[in-house]
Amino acid sequence: MTLPEKTVERLSEYRRSLADCADGGITHIFSHVLAGLHGITAVQVRRDLMLIGFSSDTKKGYDVRVLADFISSILDSPVPANIAIIGMGHLGRAITKYFNSKDLKLKIIAAFDVDPAKVGREIAGVECHDMGCFERMVGELDINMVVVSTPRDVAGELVLPIINAGIKGVLNFTSRPLNFPRGIVVENHDITTMLEKVAYFVKEGEE
Amino acid sequence: MTLPEKTVERLSEYRRSLADCADGGITHIFSHVLAGLHGITAVQVRRDLMLIGFSSDTKKGYDVRVLADFISSILDSPVPANIAIIGMGHLGRAITKYFNSKDLKLKIIAAFDVDPAKVGREIAGVECHDMGCFERMVGELDINMVVVSTPRDVAGELVLPIINAGIKGVLNFTSRPLNFPRGIVVENHDITTMLEKVAYFVKEGEE
Repeated sequence: MTLPEKTVERLSEYRRSLADCADGGITHIFSHVLAGLHGITAVQVRRDLMLIGFSSDTKKGYDVRVLADFISSILDSPVPANIAIIGMGHLGRAITKYFNSKDLKLKIIAAFDVDPAKVGREIAGVECHDMGCFERMVGELDINMVVVSTPRDVAGELVLPIINAGIKGVLNFTSRPLNFPRGIVVENHDITTMLEKVAYFVKEGEE
Repeated sequence: MTLPEKTVERLSEYRRSLADCADGGITHIFSHVLAGLHGITAVQVRRDLMLIGFSSDTKKGYDVRVLADFISSILDSPVPANIAIIGMGHLGRAITKYFNSKDLKLKIIAAFDVDPAKVGREIAGVECHDMGCFERMVGELDINMVVVSTPRDVAGELVLPIINAGIKGVLNFTSRPLNFPRGIVVENHDITTMLEKVAYFVKEGEE
C-alpha cells in the first residue's frame, strides 16, 4: 500500500528526530514527545505509525532505534538510490554540499552543466559532466533520480532528456513547474513560491 | 477571506507564468493553456480564479497583464516585506543570490551569522550582521520575515530570538522543524525530506 504524501514527509522527519534522540543517548520516546518536536498532536503520530503497521505497547514509549529502523524499512529502497544534479550554480552547489554532508542512503553522485568552465571539474565533491552526455552517463552511473537547479529559462529543455534517460524521480527547484508522463515522480519546490506563501499568510494575519 | 495554502501556491506560480507570457509578447491566455503549463486541469485554474473573484468573459482568454496584476493585489502586501536570512553558509548564500536576482516585491536585505569571518562583510550582496545584534537590527531595518539556513543543530536556539524580535513569518530550510506560537507563520521545508519523498514514490512505482 502506498502511503499518503504527508505521511511520507512526516516519517522522514520523525526518522531524523529519532536519530537525534539516539545520538543524545535517549532510548525511548513517548508519542506526545515525538509529536511535540514536530508541532503536531500525539494522535497524528500514532495514526502515522499505525498506518505503517508499527505498534509498541511498552510503558516507556517507543524504542527509538527500533522505530527508526522500522521507518527506514518503509521509506528506503533496498538498493541505494543514485542521484544526479543538473545545474551547478550556487544553488546546485549548496544543495549538493548540504545533502552529501548528511549520512543518508541517498547520494548525489554526479553533476551536469553546460558551462565549459565547470565540465570536467570536481565541484562540491562530485564530478561535473557535460549535459550533452546526460543520457549516456545516467546509464553508466546507474542514476535514477535528478535534482534540477538550473536557471528557470532552460528548465523546460530538460524534460525530454530526463524522460529519455529513464529517470524515475525529479526534484525541481527552479521556478518553472515541470510536467512528466505517468511513471516519473516529480516534486516542484520553488523557493519563491514558498516565501511568497509565508508573506501572504503574514499579511492575512495582520489584517 | 484567507485562501487555502495550495491556492496561494498556485497563484504564485500562475503569476510567474503570466510574467513569462507577457515577456514573450503574449497578451491573452486561455485557462486550459495556463493549466497545461502547470500540469493541472483548467477546472482547477478557473476554481482558483473564482476564489479570488477574478472573472473574464473575453473570447481571447484572460488578459495576461490584468490577471497578473489582480493576483499581485491578492498576494502582495501593500508595504514591501523586508526579509533577513539567518545562516550565511553555502545554502544561505545560494538562496540570497537566487532570490534577490529575481524582480520581486520581497527582498532579502540583511544576513545574520555567528562566524566572525562573515560578520561585517557583504556576502551575496547583503551585509552580514552578528547574530547577537539580531533583535536590535530587526527593529532598525524593519524586518518582518526570516529565512533560516543554519546548521540543523543550532536551529532550535533561534526560536526565542525570532519571537522576541517580533518576526511574523519564518521559512525554515533546516532539517529541524521549528515550532512557533500562534501569530507567527512558519513553513518548514527540508531538502532531505523532499528528496526522501521523491525516492519513496519512485520505489513504490517500481514495485
